[in-house]
Amino acid sequence: MRRMTARPANAHQARLLRLLRDGGPTSRAQLGDRMDLSRSRLAVEVDRLLDTGLVIADGLAASRGGRRSHNIRLSPALRFLGVDIGATSVDVAVTNAELEVLGHLTQPMDVREGPVAVFEQVLAMAAKLRASGPAEGFDGAGIGVPGPVRFPEGVPVAPPIMPGWDGFPVREALSQELGCPVMVDNDVNLMAMGEQQAGVARSAKDFLCVKIGTGIGCGIVVGGEVYRGTTGSAGDIGHIQAEPDGRPCACGNRGCLEAYFGGAALARDAEAAVREGRSAELAARLEAAGRLAATDVAAAAAAGDAAALDLIREGGTRTGQVLASLVSFFNPGLVVIGGGVTGLGHTLLAAIRTQVYRQSLPLATGNLPIVLGELGPVAGVTGAARLISDHLFSPA
Amino acid sequence: MRRMTARPANAHQARLLRLLRDGGPTSRAQLGDRMDLSRSRLAVEVDRLLDTGLVIADGLAASRGGRRSHNIRLSPALRFLGVDIGATSVDVAVTNAELEVLGHLTQPMDVREGPVAVFEQVLAMAAKLRASGPAEGFDGAGIGVPGPVRFPEGVPVAPPIMPGWDGFPVREALSQELGCPVMVDNDVNLMAMGEQQAGVARSAKDFLCVKIGTGIGCGIVVGGEVYRGTTGSAGDIGHIQAEPDGRPCACGNRGCLEAYFGGAALARDAEAAVREGRSAELAARLEAAGRLAATDVAAAAAAGDAAALDLIREGGTRTGQVLASLVSFFNPGLVVIGGGVTGLGHTLLAAIRTQVYRQSLPLATGNLPIVLGELGPVAGVTGAARLISDHLFSPA
Repeated sequence: MRRMTARPANAHQARLLRLLRDGGPTSRAQLGDRMDLSRSRLAVEVDRLLDTGLVIADGLAASRGGRRSHNIRLSPALRFLGVDIGATSVDVAVTNAELEVLGHLTQPMDVREGPVAVFEQVLAMAAKLRASGPAEGFDGAGIGVPGPVRFPEGVPVAPPIMPGWDGFPVREALSQELGCPVMVDNDVNLMAMGEQQAGVARSAKDFLCVKIGTGIGCGIVVGGEVYRGTTGSAGDIGHIQAEPDGRPCACGNRGCLEAYFGGAALARDAEAAVREGRSAELAARLEAAGRLAATDVAAAAAAGDAAALDLIREGGTRTGQVLASLVSFFNPGLVVIGGGVTGLGHTLLAAIRTQVYRQSLPLATGNLPIVLGELGPVAGVTGAARLISDHLFSPA
Repeated sequence: MRRMTARPANAHQARLLRLLRDGGPTSRAQLGDRMDLSRSRLAVEVDRLLDTGLVIADGLAASRGGRRSHNIRLSPALRFLGVDIGATSVDVAVTNAELEVLGHLTQPMDVREGPVAVFEQVLAMAAKLRASGPAEGFDGAGIGVPGPVRFPEGVPVAPPIMPGWDGFPVREALSQELGCPVMVDNDVNLMAMGEQQAGVARSAKDFLCVKIGTGIGCGIVVGGEVYRGTTGSAGDIGHIQAEPDGRPCACGNRGCLEAYFGGAALARDAEAAVREGRSAELAARLEAAGRLAATDVAAAAAAGDAAALDLIREGGTRTGQVLASLVSFFNPGLVVIGGGVTGLGHTLLAAIRTQVYRQSLPLATGNLPIVLGELGPVAGVTGAARLISDHLFSPA
């Protein structure tokens, strides 16, 4: 199959492509309502896009009186690859041009195995998706990694939980292997973009998306765009101090939020609860599996285990304390909580909410929804597809 | 004198006006280099601006080979009024179109006297500036107030240190009194805009500007634009919790940063140091004046008084602790420290720096300058003039 060879020639064409991505098949008349363009100029730009094959005609639109207009839509042949590399798992999905997921694979994986091993697995999963039908090839790929990224170059920098990744040319290497354009970002930013594209943040312009997985990070969206900071580390809230002179953290500092909560801290604290004889439920699970994970704490809490519920409440309270400061500072319109630990559900959410509503400025919380993400593991891969489509649907 | 009656007719004209504001007299050739416009279109837009009188010809430009080009500049008759209302003083200045301060008055004043009394004083100061020469009238005015503002309407909301101001229609009332367009913003945002326009943040795109006056606030600039948050309270960091279950704060909460530092806390702690017999220097000043202010602590510290130095160091450390979290979160390219308390100078700056560099993520601080503001009391009024000029130099 011939892959996407054309790019929009100007800002108008780029905007048309994004409108069609986000709105699906649309009539010329409707596009005219949304674009600040004369009718004749709009017709010229649409015709040029039809010539490139990026856009096709798609039947007659509903009548608005007068001559009926043709719907146009993005080429149904376009395929994007979304890759979401977490600390302990990898998700790979293929989407169409409207960023609908057509196929999705997830596998456990340890990011500490390093980029070569991880990308071998990613490429095998992408090949499997290709073989199983939803895509013959990819027009572009978005990749999320669990650490800060020098965004313009697509290179991870000094990632604390990713030894071996520092400076690895992810963008260049994968672009060569996949034979298509690649964009790389932090996994938390992609979760935020995914929830904005197809989840709970659809109408939000200024919001925070907190990902609680093995670690804790925060996607920051300003005016609808991800804010990455001066060196790409914006939103790295896991190493904000939650307790002066507190617990030692893997980063070398003391008292960081991640030393108290997140998947890694939760597993460690659950094992401590077993050693101290505080939970029969967790003890049984430890005996069965040899180790505990956040999912065990979630299951024990669901079964009413008091120690597990306490761990979740304490973690939520710590997270809420840090978030309360950030809410006072950033005055967001929405806070989304996502990531693997959302299996902890409403106990966690209630603890976070209580702390933020108690501690932040009333003016900042008066109208502030704090909600769980809607998309689960689909958020990251959807955000990854959005990332590469934003890049491809920009003037060349 | 005829006041500014025209507004730019389109985005190109608006951009030309801002280039001339920020760059001063410029040749058509240089403008052509900076605008993405054809030569003929540029000539049309410049000619239209000349017709409005907003822009005038200003002598021949330096030769670049070929026919010499005329310089053009903003009308030298344009005058902006900048008003910076603090908790305990008010600054009023008049600027030309390039935002250079032509006259500046400052007077003590208590914002708690309410908007009617405060604006009477502001109008008297503006009249004095008019009478003394630099302006016969004003083409627009920017006003800063020490609390959150509902920006689109120009109305203060629930300002904790400004009883009587909640909901007062500042923009509408002053626009009527002054007979010119008015824009209203939080004083801290204006300080950030002033330092960006003419001070230490000239080349910064993503930065924080911390104002330590009677209270503590933070201007947030993203991509060169002030970020105000969903309800206009972004940057209100004075009520971030610095100490769980700490000192009671005037806001009703406990442990807020402002309960520990800022002009009000500093004066109170200095008087406590006198009562406890810890400072002969401060005791002498209290006896002479009947009360202490932040300036007394600054003077005592400059004289080597140990208690005063301790108060400044403790306050700087508290401020640094809160800032460290915000630096990890926001990953700014620059942090500016300004406001009345900058009289405390390098002792304060050193304490803030030590805490931020120790506690924030290395990736966020690796290249992060933390510096004092350059403009002092001129920052706010310059930012106020910039605010109204941004508004007037936008398409109508």
